[in-house]
Amino acid sequence: MKVSQLGEFGLIKAIKDIVEQSQHMASSSGQKILLGIGDDAAAWQSNQHIALVTTDTLVQDVHFDLKAVTWEELGWKALAVNLSDIAAMGGIPTYALLSLALPPQLDVDDIIRFVRSMIYLANQFDVILIGGNTVAAPQVVINMTLIGYCKTNAMLRRTGALPGEQISVTGYLGSSAAGLAMLKGKFIRDREASNFLRQAHLKPTPRIREGQILLQQGVRTAIDISDGLLADLEHICEASGVSAKIRVDQLPVHPVVKTNFPDFQQLALFGGEDYELLFTADQETISRVRQSLACPITVIGEVTREISAQRVMVIDDRGNILRYEKGGWNHFRNAATTGKFTQP
Amino acid sequence: MKVSQLGEFGLIKAIKDIVEQSQHMASSSGQKILLGIGDDAAAWQSNQHIALVTTDTLVQDVHFDLKAVTWEELGWKALAVNLSDIAAMGGIPTYALLSLALPPQLDVDDIIRFVRSMIYLANQFDVILIGGNTVAAPQVVINMTLIGYCKTNAMLRRTGALPGEQISVTGYLGSSAAGLAMLKGKFIRDREASNFLRQAHLKPTPRIREGQILLQQGVRTAIDISDGLLADLEHICEASGVSAKIRVDQLPVHPVVKTNFPDFQQLALFGGEDYELLFTADQETISRVRQSLACPITVIGEVTREISAQRVMVIDDRGNILRYEKGGWNHFRNAATTGKFTQP
Repeated sequence: MKVSQLGEFGLIKAIKDIVEQSQHMASSSGQKILLGIGDDAAAWQSNQHIALVTTDTLVQDVHFDLKAVTWEELGWKALAVNLSDIAAMGGIPTYALLSLALPPQLDVDDIIRFVRSMIYLANQFDVILIGGNTVAAPQVVINMTLIGYCKTNAMLRRTGALPGEQISVTGYLGSSAAGLAMLKGKFIRDREASNFLRQAHLKPTPRIREGQILLQQGVRTAIDISDGLLADLEHICEASGVSAKIRVDQLPVHPVVKTNFPDFQQLALFGGEDYELLFTADQETISRVRQSLACPITVIGEVTREISAQRVMVIDDRGNILRYEKGGWNHFRNAATTGKFTQP
Repeated sequence: MKVSQLGEFGLIKAIKDIVEQSQHMASSSGQKILLGIGDDAAAWQSNQHIALVTTDTLVQDVHFDLKAVTWEELGWKALAVNLSDIAAMGGIPTYALLSLALPPQLDVDDIIRFVRSMIYLANQFDVILIGGNTVAAPQVVINMTLIGYCKTNAMLRRTGALPGEQISVTGYLGSSAAGLAMLKGKFIRDREASNFLRQAHLKPTPRIREGQILLQQGVRTAIDISDGLLADLEHICEASGVSAKIRVDQLPVHPVVKTNFPDFQQLALFGGEDYELLFTADQETISRVRQSLACPITVIGEVTREISAQRVMVIDDRGNILRYEKGGWNHFRNAATTGKFTQP
């Protein structure tokens, strides 16, 4: 079978299976593993806290196009996507490692711009670039590893969502996918709107502080939206053994996206890389979260009992079930696809 | 300036400069950074020990050729090169993260063989694969991050070499470069010799236990030989502000390499990827190390006072100085080159 037939999540599951079957599960340090493969970050019990580590890769012409993106934007985004994984654990990021595979004919000044921009973002979260490596390659591959920790002995996980809990998101959905559509050719007349969309796709602000506040306020189930709302909500449902029902008319979509993209609901449902936090909790907890945070917190649906057929049910404002094909971002199968509604 | 003109070490220095100029150097955790960019691994003071992290990347057609290497060998080597960096700190490895960029048409069974082989090696050192990611890419890029620690509050560094100290290496030099030459076409008749050479290049055994014993026995200056003996000894000299003198006739070369490669001294001097440990210490410490270890420990020269012109002086058995061009492995400039002697 080819990797493309198995797909990203199938491949990760295959690797996870090998690890669980054949690996000694006690490290030489005797530290207890809390989370292995399959969440936003890996976690283990360190002395007084939970240690976290995550890694992510951006590949030229798969994840970015050097003709459309500046090196500043790339440096920002490479770190931001990893920060977002630590945010999704409710963690505090500390140290970053940068591995750069670069074509030898690249301009050194571009790499310097890339690193400066990365450090600028790192400084905002007291993250220190402590190491990495550089190698030659035919195209640019950026790999970042980010280390962090949770202050208390709790963290945000994909598991634990309970039927009856509300499903909420920070910020707006679909802005990044709208930005990508613009970069791919969709014309946006308004300069301010175009800047907003570009930034949404290329310079997302990871929800580090928001993740910590979710954790402090008692939330325990969260994920960052990288694959797309539906795909990431499915990850939560699978990990928690539940289903979910969301109202498409309640999805928070920024006015710029609503104005310029008639398909804004599809962008919000299937478009990935918003790097907002998607979480579940009871009503009271969500009220406390809303009071503690400056960013919009929108309830978009509720957790339901497990239904075998489809994990996530999408309904319109009249309660009609909308049918859709699985979309979201799945490496190997479909790069940056948006899913499509089918006739109900 | 192009990346190829600046070279790998120039680029790393440029990145290091940006970090030191513009980065807040206190992490949010308040942990003290012991080693940033520029050693085999990064290190910081954790609660009761020194935490270590290292990362390395293998790129298809730059570091390996899928027509010459099996997926089992690749899985082994990808982890081994990172284990070697932890060994060079005297550390104990604990957790690994694997990032795989893969062409979608690859066979899943190959990836499974790759992961199984990696886990087999990981189990030998109680290392646990706790996370990672997979992305699509035009060619295979393997990035590994390895976390570890030093039990005591000491570690092996590149700094600290003192004039008068002996320079020693574990095991044999040049075997990996000889193996690469064979894979590139040099005919080796003897089956056992050919197996030895293939293994030396593709399945090196990282000196994890040896590194820990060096540290226990009082060694403080070490590096693993990845770029080549001369290049890596230069790294130690630069970091320590010293020079070095080595005797080419004293380099430990395996009989298989001596028998089959007339240029074995060049392979030992310039050939990289042996993943042996190169270290400096006083005579007494080295005697203790030799008694504690089963592998060969060979004194190949001594640390001298700093000389501005050339960091490392190579002499023959009659004390004549051998001139050579800088070689060793430097990504971007020359892939897997072996340096060349010039007429004295």
